[in-house]
Formats: sequence, structure tokens, C-alpha cells
Amino acid sequence: MRTLKLTQDTINSLLTDLLKRSPSQYTEFESKVGEIIENVRAKKDAAVFEYTKKFDGADLTAENVEVTEEELAMAYKFVQPELLKVIRKALVNIKTYHEKQKQYSWFDSSENGIMVGQKVTPIDRAGVYVPGGKAVYPSSVLMNVMPAKVAGVKEIIMTTPCDKNGNVNPATLVAAKEAGVDRIFKIGGAQAIAAMAFGTESIPKADKIVGPGNIYVALAKKAVFGHVSIDSIAGPSEILVLADETANPSYVAADLLSQAEHDELASAILITTSEKLAAEVLAEVQRFTHELSRKEIIKKSLDNYGYILIAPDLNTAIDTVNEIASEHLEIVTANAFEVMTRIKHAGAIFIGEYSSEPLGDYFAGPNHVLPTNGTAKFFSPLSVDDFIKKSSIISYSKEALEPIYKDIIQFAECEQLTAHANSIRVRFED
Amino acid sequence: MRTLKLTQDTINSLLTDLLKRSPSQYTEFESKVGEIIENVRAKKDAAVFEYTKKFDGADLTAENVEVTEEELAMAYKFVQPELLKVIRKALVNIKTYHEKQKQYSWFDSSENGIMVGQKVTPIDRAGVYVPGGKAVYPSSVLMNVMPAKVAGVKEIIMTTPCDKNGNVNPATLVAAKEAGVDRIFKIGGAQAIAAMAFGTESIPKADKIVGPGNIYVALAKKAVFGHVSIDSIAGPSEILVLADETANPSYVAADLLSQAEHDELASAILITTSEKLAAEVLAEVQRFTHELSRKEIIKKSLDNYGYILIAPDLNTAIDTVNEIASEHLEIVTANAFEVMTRIKHAGAIFIGEYSSEPLGDYFAGPNHVLPTNGTAKFFSPLSVDDFIKKSSIISYSKEALEPIYKDIIQFAECEQLTAHANSIRVRFED
Repeated sequence: MRTLKLTQDTINSLLTDLLKRSPSQYTEFESKVGEIIENVRAKKDAAVFEYTKKFDGADLTAENVEVTEEELAMAYKFVQPELLKVIRKALVNIKTYHEKQKQYSWFDSSENGIMVGQKVTPIDRAGVYVPGGKAVYPSSVLMNVMPAKVAGVKEIIMTTPCDKNGNVNPATLVAAKEAGVDRIFKIGGAQAIAAMAFGTESIPKADKIVGPGNIYVALAKKAVFGHVSIDSIAGPSEILVLADETANPSYVAADLLSQAEHDELASAILITTSEKLAAEVLAEVQRFTHELSRKEIIKKSLDNYGYILIAPDLNTAIDTVNEIASEHLEIVTANAFEVMTRIKHAGAIFIGEYSSEPLGDYFAGPNHVLPTNGTAKFFSPLSVDDFIKKSSIISYSKEALEPIYKDIIQFAECEQLTAHANSIRVRFED
Repeated sequence: MRTLKLTQDTINSLLTDLLKRSPSQYTEFESKVGEIIENVRAKKDAAVFEYTKKFDGADLTAENVEVTEEELAMAYKFVQPELLKVIRKALVNIKTYHEKQKQYSWFDSSENGIMVGQKVTPIDRAGVYVPGGKAVYPSSVLMNVMPAKVAGVKEIIMTTPCDKNGNVNPATLVAAKEAGVDRIFKIGGAQAIAAMAFGTESIPKADKIVGPGNIYVALAKKAVFGHVSIDSIAGPSEILVLADETANPSYVAADLLSQAEHDELASAILITTSEKLAAEVLAEVQRFTHELSRKEIIKKSLDNYGYILIAPDLNTAIDTVNEIASEHLEIVTANAFEVMTRIKHAGAIFIGEYSSEPLGDYFAGPNHVLPTNGTAKFFSPLSVDDFIKKSSIISYSKEALEPIYKDIIQFAECEQLTAHANSIRVRFED
């Protein structure tokens, strides 16, 4: 972890470093992913099962690719009762928060018979990808499924890789069942994304595919975008803490480490106006790191993407926060709420010294699927918005069309679209 | 234009035909587009000017790539006063409609010091692509720019190709000025998309790129997705008319033709429960086609993608409408409003016999940039939503965190994220 003076040069080199972590840097995998997608599209189940044998070592067939009710019931026996209890508590908060995101159809009408509006409908079927492997994140299942559920999506399917015996992690299954997933398929990787994008004999086609995954999954999602909708393409996690001399260095250090432990590409940055705090946080980071189980990952991510930046003043610090557009932002300053109003770009904003980032990961209710790597400048957290879409509504009476029909003809003729003009004219010819 | 009985087989072959028009079918251009993007990313202005010379025949430099105030003033002299008048009238409706789409930041709080919420901010800079060539569509400029303006985007830039003398169509320039574009650059094609995605010495980087274009533009937008946000990938236009025996065959025919004239890949479909109407519409289509200036295009698009489908009953017809998920849908039946409530998937829905599709293209206010080729199942019309993004807000007091802090630790430890657990624990250790 480097301590540096905050200058435009520092920021530029930091931003260049962070962008190196972007999935779009790995175009060398694109052709391999393209091949998997084309094969699944053409050969459907047969290709999916072949890739599953190759990559996951499992023998899947149309008969055993889907998780059964019995497997779900068995999963509950393997999950700690305490975990089930917190999953259920968290789900209440996640549901409550996302219900406030609901959008409603509206219309506007006038007495001469004009109605314009916007109709909101959920998508028909959502596909949620859940990674397998060593790390298992039931919280991620809740966060990806619940917005679809609240949006009113009729069918939510999930894919997650199985082990070579065809088993899926029980905590993943329990989280899926609790969140309300309708069908679960034991497949992973680019082949699972392709199966949900185009449909196979066993896997139904989804309208939108969401969920995190490795580089193959990320590139596959990008490749199928347009055939289906996808959430934003996730990169490695980040935290940015904006703190002044009022902050508790121990809390700040602990929060920086909570993101650094995710993986070696994770980034943890402190921007502070206080040199004293900077030194104290660095000491606390070193003290904690020794005690933590994931210290090897933490050391690597801090070495590569960990920064303590000393800003000349709060305004400069805020400008930098907006330039970085971090996934997670903690504001631990005097007048933190006022500072929040000046933040333009961040995935999630945590205000005050008790709003620790993991509170948002698990419990507070807002979604933990957030735009990474500067994409908070144009992407939003995963939300109910991702699972609805809108249709414009237009209804004009004859009385409403008559005073403007010549204007429309005029416009159409200027664009040399004579059939457009004709479709208006024909209504007033008689 | 074929008249067929509506069966599941008919629908399947129709959907297969329509999908042939999708830009994702043209992957052979991908490597060419990829090369243009990489060149612009690396060599910036130099590459942009080289491609402009090659494709548009124009000699551009950093000094003349941007449209000047003088050129804008000159453009006003070349535009018919009638066109300017309808542009201004249309803009009032477009602005009024889009203002109703505005979303607001919200928060929810409780007495023990919990606040969760969602902050809405506009993106900083939008990039609008406007095609050049023979067809000039000032209405498209208005529809792409106005939602960004209403969203509160600070800077809106536009790119559009120039002719070999460096001139841009005056109607395009006037529409851009009227809608409130801040800067206009005389470049087009994949090189313009790349320039807006990565920035060059002359062209600033945009956060979101919207606007229609040819296959190179569509593929370039898909390729830069993730670096920036994009609107949905547009395919050729479509109209679907759902009509019963109460419909006026002449109006229906004219409306079908208004989309068929767009290009040879455009599609026009009538689904009706009335064999009589089907025959009458076909006769009217033939009568009108002879009279229309774009009859060659119309004939080709109707031959390939024009259908009249006779449905056994209204329910089957509605199911088919939802399966096709057309860009434009006209409902010309008895109880048209009730039928509308049963439509799940369509870009824009036009209700009743005076709600002709071109009314929506130019004048009513809703956006004419709509999801095509079945993507209305998951994409929405271009809207203010496209130019805003959201940040989650989380603020907990110590009193709020204390009763649940052990739950969060529990969850984090189940996921083996010990630094996450530590960041909560450290706050209650003392």
C-alpha cells in the first residue's frame, strides 16, 4: 500500500492501473468464448454436457442437469441453522429496499382525446448465474434473485457449476430456494451463459442474464448482449474511503481490508486530508493484515491496487472521488451527509463511521451488485429496473390529430418518407 | 406480402425470418470494426482523420473537425422555415413527455438512525451518433438528444459524417442546435464510435453513446460496451398491426407501408381475426404501393418480411403479438384499450384508428428510438432513464448497527470472508 500526495499525475497513473483489471483487457479469450457459444447454439444440450464433462468433470444428461426437490431438501440438512436464520433476516431487508424501487405505469391525458403514457411490465424469464468453485457466496444469490422477484418476473432460472459428482454447494441451493428461484441447472462457465441466451432442450431461454463470474462468463455475457439483455459487466471489487481527521483509523483500516481480501485484483484506496490519519491507517492496516486468514490475497491486492492519497483539501478530495467513480465509497468526515450531496459517481455510498461496507454486502437491503472500475459514471447498482421494461403508449382521437396532421405530413416529407406522410393524409382525405 | 393462417409453424418460420435481419448475424464485420477501434484508441485523432479520408473522402484536421458557430448559422439559411417550425412544435411535445420520465432520489429512514436510499444523478457527457448519407432524419436528432437534455446531462456531443467537402446536412445541424447539442463533430462510422468511447485529442470521451447507424456503427457500439454505456443495438424497423373487422383497411394498409418504406429489411405484419379485412388490406397495400415514391424499397421489404396473418380468435392473436414483441404495435380493434392491457411486449403501442405510427415518429412526444426484432421483451424505448444512473445510500448509527452486528459477522464467516467480519467486529470491541 503506497502513501502518495494527491496530484493529477497520481490520479492518472492510479486510474491507468485500475483499468488494467478490466475484463475488456482479456480479449485473447474472446475467440475461445465465441467458439463455446456457437457450439451451444448449434448443438444445444449435447454441447453443454460435453463442456461440463471437460471443464467440471461431471456426467450430465437431460435427466440429471436440473436440481431436484430432493436435492434441495437435502441441502437444507447440510446448512448451519445460524446461516439460514441470517439469510432469512437479510432477505426481509433486501425485499423491503427493492420494493421501493418499483416503477409504475403512468399516462397523461387531455380532454380532446390525447393519451400518452408508459406501460411497465416485468420481463418473462430471468437467468441468474452463480459461480461455483472454492468461494461460495449465498449473499450473492439473494442479491441477484430478489430484484427479479420484486419486479414480478414470472420465472427465475439459475445456473451454477457442479462438482465432478454432480453436486452443487448446499448454501447456494438454500439461498436460491429462500430467494424464490424456480429452476436450478448444474452448469457453469460460458456454456451456461450460451444455454440461457439461446435455450437448449433442457435449459429454457432467458430474456435477461445477470450474475458475476470469471473472465469466460463475463466475455460470454458481452457476446450474447443483444440476443438477450445482461447486467453490467462486473470487474474486481473496490473500496474508496474518503476520510478527514475525525475518522477512526482502526475502522478505516478494517474497511479497506474488507475489500482487499476479495481477490488479488481488488482495490482499496483511502483519500484523506489528514496526514496523521494516513499514517495511523497504514499502521492499522499492517497490524490487521497479520491477523487475517486471507492475508496472502490482501498483501497482493494492497501491493498492486492499494493507495493512501493525501489531498490538499476536501474539495480536491471530492473531485478525485468523482473521477475514480468507485464501486463502494465510504464517507467518514465531518458533515458527511453534506459531502454525500456533492458525490456524482459511486456505486454505493456509506455515510458515517458505523456504516461499514460489509453492512451493505449482507444486510442493509441495497443491492451489493454494483458498477466497478469507473463504470459508476454510467451504470447503476442491480435493481428492480433491470427486470422491467417499458412500452410507450400513444392514443389520439380524430379531434386531437386534426389540428396537427399537416405538421406531421410536413415533417415526413422533409425526410422524404412519403409513405409516412400518406398514412396521415389518408385519414383526412374523405 | 403473404397471407397465411396463423399457426405455431407460421409464427416459428416468421420469427426465424425476422431474426435474419439482426445486426448480430453480421459477425464477419467484427474483426474489421475491432481493427478500427484499436487504431483509434491507439492513434486517436490521426486514425480518425485517416479513416474519414478513406471512407468519407474529407480532409479533416483538429482545426476543422468541429462544426463552428458560423456553420450552424449558415445551416439555418438552408433549412425551410416550415421544417424549422414543425421541429420546434415537435420539441415541445417531446420535452413534455420526457419530463414525466424523470426519476428522483429518495430515502427511507427510521428513528434509530437508519437511512437507506437511492441517489439519482445524470451522466456527465452523452455522445449522440447521427448517420449521414442520403437519408437525413432531423426527427432522429431530436429523439436522441432530448432525453439526455431532460435528464440534466451537462454536455451533449454529437458526431455525424460530412461529405467530401467537409459539409454536414443543414437539417441535421439545425435539429441539433434546436435540441441543445453542445458540440458537433464531422465524423462517422466505427471511427466516430471509437473516438467517443475512448476520447482523442479533439473528441472528448463520452460516458454513454446512443443513436442509430449502419452495421459498422452497431458492431462498434457493441464492442465498446463496458468501456462506456450504449443504448440497445438497433435493427431494422417493424410494424405489427392487430386489427379486427372494425378496422379501416385503407388506414391499416397505409400504416403498414409507412414502415415498409424505411429499408429493404423493414417488416410489416398484420394480424387479424377477419378474413375480409385481410383481403381488403392486401388490395389497399397494392393500390398505395404503386403511388408511393419509395415503391422499390417497399416491394422488397414486403416480399421478404411482409405478412398478413389470419388468427382463429383474438386471444391467439394477442399471444402472437406478445411472442413477436414488435417495435411498433397498432391496436385497431373493438375495446382497444382493454386489449392494450393484455400486451406484455412491444416498443410503442398505438391505440385506435387515429393513432397512426408516424404520429409517434414525429410528434406525439414519446421517443421513436424503440427496441426492434423481439428485443422489446427486455429493452425499453430510449428515455431519460438512459442518461441517469443511481447510487445506493446507506447510513447506520451505532444504535442501528449494534442489534444486528453479530448477524453480519455470522454471514461473513459463513462466506469465509474474515476481513469482512473483522470490519464489523472492530466497531464493538472496545
